[in-house]
Amino acid sequence: MSKKIKKIAVLTSGGDSPGMNAAIRAVVRTCSYHNIQCIGVYRGYEGLIDGDFEELNARSVKGIINKGGTFLKSARSNRFRTPEGRKQAYEKIKEIEADGLVVIGGDGSFTGAMIFNQEFGFPVMGIPGTIDNDIFGTSHTLGFDTALNTVVDAIDKIRDTASSHNRLFFIEVMGRDVGHIALNAGIAGGAEEILIPEEDLGLDRLVESLNRSKKSGKTSSIVIVAEGDKIGKNIFELKEYVDDNMEGYDVRVSVLGHMQRGGAPSCFDRVLASRMGVKAVESLIGGQTNYMVGLLNGKMELTPIEKAIKGKTKINLELLRVSDIMST
Amino acid sequence: MSKKIKKIAVLTSGGDSPGMNAAIRAVVRTCSYHNIQCIGVYRGYEGLIDGDFEELNARSVKGIINKGGTFLKSARSNRFRTPEGRKQAYEKIKEIEADGLVVIGGDGSFTGAMIFNQEFGFPVMGIPGTIDNDIFGTSHTLGFDTALNTVVDAIDKIRDTASSHNRLFFIEVMGRDVGHIALNAGIAGGAEEILIPEEDLGLDRLVESLNRSKKSGKTSSIVIVAEGDKIGKNIFELKEYVDDNMEGYDVRVSVLGHMQRGGAPSCFDRVLASRMGVKAVESLIGGQTNYMVGLLNGKMELTPIEKAIKGKTKINLELLRVSDIMST
Amino acid sequence: MSKKIKKIAVLTSGGDSPGMNAAIRAVVRTCSYHNIQCIGVYRGYEGLIDGDFEELNARSVKGIINKGGTFLKSARSNRFRTPEGRKQAYEKIKEIEADGLVVIGGDGSFTGAMIFNQEFGFPVMGIPGTIDNDIFGTSHTLGFDTALNTVVDAIDKIRDTASSHNRLFFIEVMGRDVGHIALNAGIAGGAEEILIPEEDLGLDRLVESLNRSKKSGKTSSIVIVAEGDKIGKNIFELKEYVDDNMEGYDVRVSVLGHMQRGGAPSCFDRVLASRMGVKAVESLIGGQTNYMVGLLNGKMELTPIEKAIKGKTKINLELLRVSDIMST
Amino acid sequence: MSKKIKKIAVLTSGGDSPGMNAAIRAVVRTCSYHNIQCIGVYRGYEGLIDGDFEELNARSVKGIINKGGTFLKSARSNRFRTPEGRKQAYEKIKEIEADGLVVIGGDGSFTGAMIFNQEFGFPVMGIPGTIDNDIFGTSHTLGFDTALNTVVDAIDKIRDTASSHNRLFFIEVMGRDVGHIALNAGIAGGAEEILIPEEDLGLDRLVESLNRSKKSGKTSSIVIVAEGDKIGKNIFELKEYVDDNMEGYDVRVSVLGHMQRGGAPSCFDRVLASRMGVKAVESLIGGQTNYMVGLLNGKMELTPIEKAIKGKTKINLELLRVSDIMST
Repeated sequence: MSKKIKKIAVLTSGGDSPGMNAAIRAVVRTCSYHNIQCIGVYRGYEGLIDGDFEELNARSVKGIINKGGTFLKSARSNRFRTPEGRKQAYEKIKEIEADGLVVIGGDGSFTGAMIFNQEFGFPVMGIPGTIDNDIFGTSHTLGFDTALNTVVDAIDKIRDTASSHNRLFFIEVMGRDVGHIALNAGIAGGAEEILIPEEDLGLDRLVESLNRSKKSGKTSSIVIVAEGDKIGKNIFELKEYVDDNMEGYDVRVSVLGHMQRGGAPSCFDRVLASRMGVKAVESLIGGQTNYMVGLLNGKMELTPIEKAIKGKTKINLELLRVSDIMST
Repeated sequence: MSKKIKKIAVLTSGGDSPGMNAAIRAVVRTCSYHNIQCIGVYRGYEGLIDGDFEELNARSVKGIINKGGTFLKSARSNRFRTPEGRKQAYEKIKEIEADGLVVIGGDGSFTGAMIFNQEFGFPVMGIPGTIDNDIFGTSHTLGFDTALNTVVDAIDKIRDTASSHNRLFFIEVMGRDVGHIALNAGIAGGAEEILIPEEDLGLDRLVESLNRSKKSGKTSSIVIVAEGDKIGKNIFELKEYVDDNMEGYDVRVSVLGHMQRGGAPSCFDRVLASRMGVKAVESLIGGQTNYMVGLLNGKMELTPIEKAIKGKTKINLELLRVSDIMST
Repeated sequence: MSKKIKKIAVLTSGGDSPGMNAAIRAVVRTCSYHNIQCIGVYRGYEGLIDGDFEELNARSVKGIINKGGTFLKSARSNRFRTPEGRKQAYEKIKEIEADGLVVIGGDGSFTGAMIFNQEFGFPVMGIPGTIDNDIFGTSHTLGFDTALNTVVDAIDKIRDTASSHNRLFFIEVMGRDVGHIALNAGIAGGAEEILIPEEDLGLDRLVESLNRSKKSGKTSSIVIVAEGDKIGKNIFELKEYVDDNMEGYDVRVSVLGHMQRGGAPSCFDRVLASRMGVKAVESLIGGQTNYMVGLLNGKMELTPIEKAIKGKTKINLELLRVSDIMST
Repeated sequence: MSKKIKKIAVLTSGGDSPGMNAAIRAVVRTCSYHNIQCIGVYRGYEGLIDGDFEELNARSVKGIINKGGTFLKSARSNRFRTPEGRKQAYEKIKEIEADGLVVIGGDGSFTGAMIFNQEFGFPVMGIPGTIDNDIFGTSHTLGFDTALNTVVDAIDKIRDTASSHNRLFFIEVMGRDVGHIALNAGIAGGAEEILIPEEDLGLDRLVESLNRSKKSGKTSSIVIVAEGDKIGKNIFELKEYVDDNMEGYDVRVSVLGHMQRGGAPSCFDRVLASRMGVKAVESLIGGQTNYMVGLLNGKMELTPIEKAIKGKTKINLELLRVSDIMST
């Protein structure tokens, strides 16, 4: 039987995403609600190794639900990839007598948590925080919804100038391995084509499709390109190819970059963060460990961290079809 | 067997919501994709009775996916509540040889569509467009997500001034019969209390809770009140009661009002609108009628209109609990 | 000759406005740049009387330039209106050996500063922080530009729903004594009429004008009403009057309220705050006292506080004419 | 004496900017107010040569005051650079019996207008529309204020992620010849350094300054770089240099790109556009020609187009100093 939880540590790790602060707040306040102490760990696993701790109470986290980023800071930790690093981390966390650890991050961070749990039997619980929505076991990762709104807002602005000048724009959005941002933001931004890692449209068909758009009366076009697009050319090469193989368009490129990671979280992400924080802490209290909290069919569910890491999210094929129909 | 669909009419009815334009666009483009004519009906059922029609093609709906409101306009129609009005509407729609009607609106609009179908056997398909999220058969109505972000943005602004002055704010949000907006926006806005139609907190417990907040060190507080809150006092009466029964707070009221209905739709609502438009048209093509398109567990599903009208959405009890824990 | 300044105190007072945090930051960093100590005073004159002080350095004010409200908090102080209160405040500020005081606020706050200077000869410098733009000696007060954008964003949203339903909206904006917000936001929001404290349009002419708009083909209309509008009826009485005296419009009311005071400051307000903070501190260093810093013809200028309080800002008559022409 | 104006043409030319639609609206409605016909010219001078005209009335321009871009579209015209092209344009504009032309654009567009006026004596009036604020004779060009808010919003988002990861970001903003956007947005975004075309900071001093920032306790930094920065290296070369010559920072680059040109205009730009439109039309009516309308010391003033083109805007040295002090 699991022993009673009296102190929980929380950290953010990997790339930051909007909603991480809201999730920390939820972890802290759920601890407070259950009369459990909560310890914030700065700089992810780096801070865990260094013992960079601070006790947090319900008032410590006021006014942060609407702030982007993570006030606990995040980092990638090479030391935590070594047995020595993890051992030191374990010693530090035992020193403060914590009984559980909530890790807010992506799959790299979860791998670390899982190994930490395997090596020392220390109870861990994951909250999926990344804008890429590439974690198995949850329909939405924290920050995905906010990033979509940020991207769509940028596309709207670019369309203003595109349609004033009859231009074709290639817009690069985040997503090295998955096309969730590209696909959703592309539909919402009214893109003519969406290039994603999961599907190779091919250069010829791209040009063909753009020509068809043009003939149908469109005077400007937007193509959304995920970083990891399957065609395999970078966005500037794409522009060159289209410049060389299509007439009548002034082709431009825009790389949205890191602004996609920031900003005040959307209502959806704040509510999701709050629910996930509650679920994570109460699952630890209930004696569960080595799980990730996720949103499945509208409900909070647990998925073994190992499955969350190894599972693959799939692109929604219906959305691909909707995109095709909408660019009629 | 259902006859082949060649022409579909589309209208928006009842209170407008962000995403209606995106849904019209999706209906029009799906028709275009399937080589079906599409007819826009102005001013809801009023325009149906008056024959206020315009043929729409894929280019007619360019540049509207990001616009709030509905370019087809909306109206409430008393005439459509009479057999004579509906008969005239039927004659007008037969005159243009339409084979199906897509109705974008709330439950009042759906009731009209259902009766119209019962009386004349005319194929109808509903798309749930309302910010209130009070339609059975879909986890999200069109515009709900956008309205939540609008409300939360307003709460964030009010909190700036609330916390600068140690004030208590009562903020009224839309929701005459259901508390979905209040509950979600309240959690996301960090509200101390959320008053909804589904639950009667009671005045005494409200004051008690605010006093507890104060003692716990909070220097400002926000209470979200749904229009149809169960306590049964309007928001100005609530303020008076708290003024009379609590000390140390400067109490203010803000009624967010109609701005909640407007604005550019969020990415979520644009994608949802696009999916619903495709599903509605293709369901009519497939011979189905008298259904509403909805989002259930992330997928497009059909629900009989009658069930959509009579069914009740329920407040998510988990969210109530999350709200309680967060206001620790 | 004035003695060398070694320590400056800063406070925010009266209604808060976006940009106050940016102004505090600028005061603190300008002190730091000149190797002067800076003391933050909490809760305006209340904190001055109570000695609620905190030393601030360049790092204390990081991350606040984009935050609405004021982290030093603001308050109205009845005690500071009494000689005893001011005497106690003077003792407290001498205790910490401050040599000057920067007051960020509106004309009530400046009156306090002026009397404090007259009674004790203590060097004071004012920074005009209020969304109302009602201070003489500056073309823009801190927060005015941000509030305008907030109001215009709300009008845009309301227009979405107004034009979807052929409605007439009365929208109340802040401005008890001056119509600057109403006039600018009304032009920018495309209002048909703008009712301000400086001009009595009269009810008959209002209805006449709305009827003319209607005949010219407008199907929806927006009327912006400053709180202190000269007609003298509140906005709900206006609605009733128009309901009774005009046909064919569904009339609605929206009171924007306190959200106008909050939100991240605009670029304009952040730059203005930064310039004002530098100018205020360097003017005190230069031996000047009892002035307000202002923006005049694009430059930082000093105006004696007494003149700033007694002078009247005037409505720009050109804008009234532009509004008339635009509502053609 | 000038003959009576009965018909005015209006076009947008060069790079688009937020507020152009609002300016077209103002031109159209001012014509309507004075019972003058107004002709919209599509695609700038290209449309003038091709006779791509449409009569516009007060209702044609409804609902556009808040739209980015220009519904008349814009273009750069090589043909208008030739005497033949301009002759054909003159014939087309005489054919429709227009008496004056309002050109909304930047200095390239104004040069065209001036030559057109010199060659044919045709009355022209300029409205400065560009986000760069690089036109002499106006303190603000149309779109500058909006672009600043767009840039600052992006910087705020990037800062969220920068400060979560202790990163140094180089952010490139528009401004090939002038640093107005970089300087204002840099101050408002809390940038550590701002690199502009008017001043060569030098690479060594940049690194020195960043090292100083780091020592002073800053854990993340943002450097704003105008496209035409004097150091003469592009932003990726800057990153490389700093990577090679500084330790302890993870350096990233973000190029904001064309989204800076789009979006709903700010309140300031909408009011400015409305004032400029009125002034331009009424100046033509008053018999003036070959002027540009501008905002000087808060008032609408005329500047001879030739002076507007040849004059240089200067960077506000006070702002440079404010920036230095703020990055203390």
